[in-house]
Amino acid sequence: MNNRIITISREFGSGGRTIGKMAAEKLGIPYYDKDLVKKVAVETGFDESYIEKQGEDAPSKSIFGYAFAARGMNGAMNGMSADDFLWVIQRNVILDLAEKGPCVIVGRCADYILKERTDCLNVFVHAAAETRAERIVRLYGETEKSPAKRLEEKDKKREVYYKYYTGQVWGMAKNYAISLDSGKLGLDQCVELITGLTNLRPEDVKR
Amino acid sequence: MNNRIITISREFGSGGRTIGKMAAEKLGIPYYDKDLVKKVAVETGFDESYIEKQGEDAPSKSIFGYAFAARGMNGAMNGMSADDFLWVIQRNVILDLAEKGPCVIVGRCADYILKERTDCLNVFVHAAAETRAERIVRLYGETEKSPAKRLEEKDKKREVYYKYYTGQVWGMAKNYAISLDSGKLGLDQCVELITGLTNLRPEDVKR
Repeated sequence: MNNRIITISREFGSGGRTIGKMAAEKLGIPYYDKDLVKKVAVETGFDESYIEKQGEDAPSKSIFGYAFAARGMNGAMNGMSADDFLWVIQRNVILDLAEKGPCVIVGRCADYILKERTDCLNVFVHAAAETRAERIVRLYGETEKSPAKRLEEKDKKREVYYKYYTGQVWGMAKNYAISLDSGKLGLDQCVELITGLTNLRPEDVKR
Repeated sequence: MNNRIITISREFGSGGRTIGKMAAEKLGIPYYDKDLVKKVAVETGFDESYIEKQGEDAPSKSIFGYAFAARGMNGAMNGMSADDFLWVIQRNVILDLAEKGPCVIVGRCADYILKERTDCLNVFVHAAAETRAERIVRLYGETEKSPAKRLEEKDKKREVYYKYYTGQVWGMAKNYAISLDSGKLGLDQCVELITGLTNLRPEDVKR
């Protein structure tokens, strides 16, 4: 297929991860998300839960972050912050995965990391705040924080992380081949649209 | 059909207008763009070429603008600027058109104006600057200004206009049900994707 790699960036609670999983299943290709994080964890010696927590959060310069870094890296960081080092490792893993074969990669700025490739379909999934609030409560349950607050915090973190590592504004349509409102279109329809674009031949893009 | 109204916002040179025309033709529904401007012109007495020029440009407070306004409006503006008055007229025309029946409306912040409707599919069409530069030279010819400069100026004007009248950032994916990179996907494919979404039934959007 022409678009061998599908990257999915998504707003928290938009169902982007589920869409990615469904698309990978439908196409019979690997899906990377937490697996990717695990792979990173193995390669770096980072504590897995720390990576998972920090993976898409804004770079923290907290003592906590540095403590893990100092413990895990054995001086390999060359003066980089734990977050920056993690970024470099993740970037290499993503470049390797894309080289290896067709796959779906959710999150981790994979769209930006793979921007030089011509066989990559970058997708952004978003939805109205109310739709996402309803979804996170249904999937992850209630917490002390209101759903609106949880969305706001997560969105802000992803925005800052994306800006920090890519220099671009999070959520701009121009960074993606296709952006979809999963609330308006439905998850199944999003999967249909995405998987339908993996077989584009050059003659389909002639004008 | 569920999404009776299709609004298309587009970057200059992205082929969004052509996509809108093709979609309307395929669906057998009216297409509004310059026709809309003409309708506005008739209703306001504005000079048509002035409206066409100002339609999507940033609000100008030039004497030129006021001169036309003063000539055309016969005191109907109640202290509004020519641009603001034009906005109100255009808004009413768009609301009327949407009420009247299925149609495709290109530009004029129709996505924002019709945001309360649930039968409206808002589309954003964009493309890489190089793709658009190549396209505007092919379609509109060379001018004294470089294609890059022409794109920059048009993009800036649309951005400012959109911000001024909607309070939103131009080009954010979240303002549209679907955003498409016409350079990456091709115009025909964009038409396919858009027209394929007009027949969504409620049960297609169940999750």
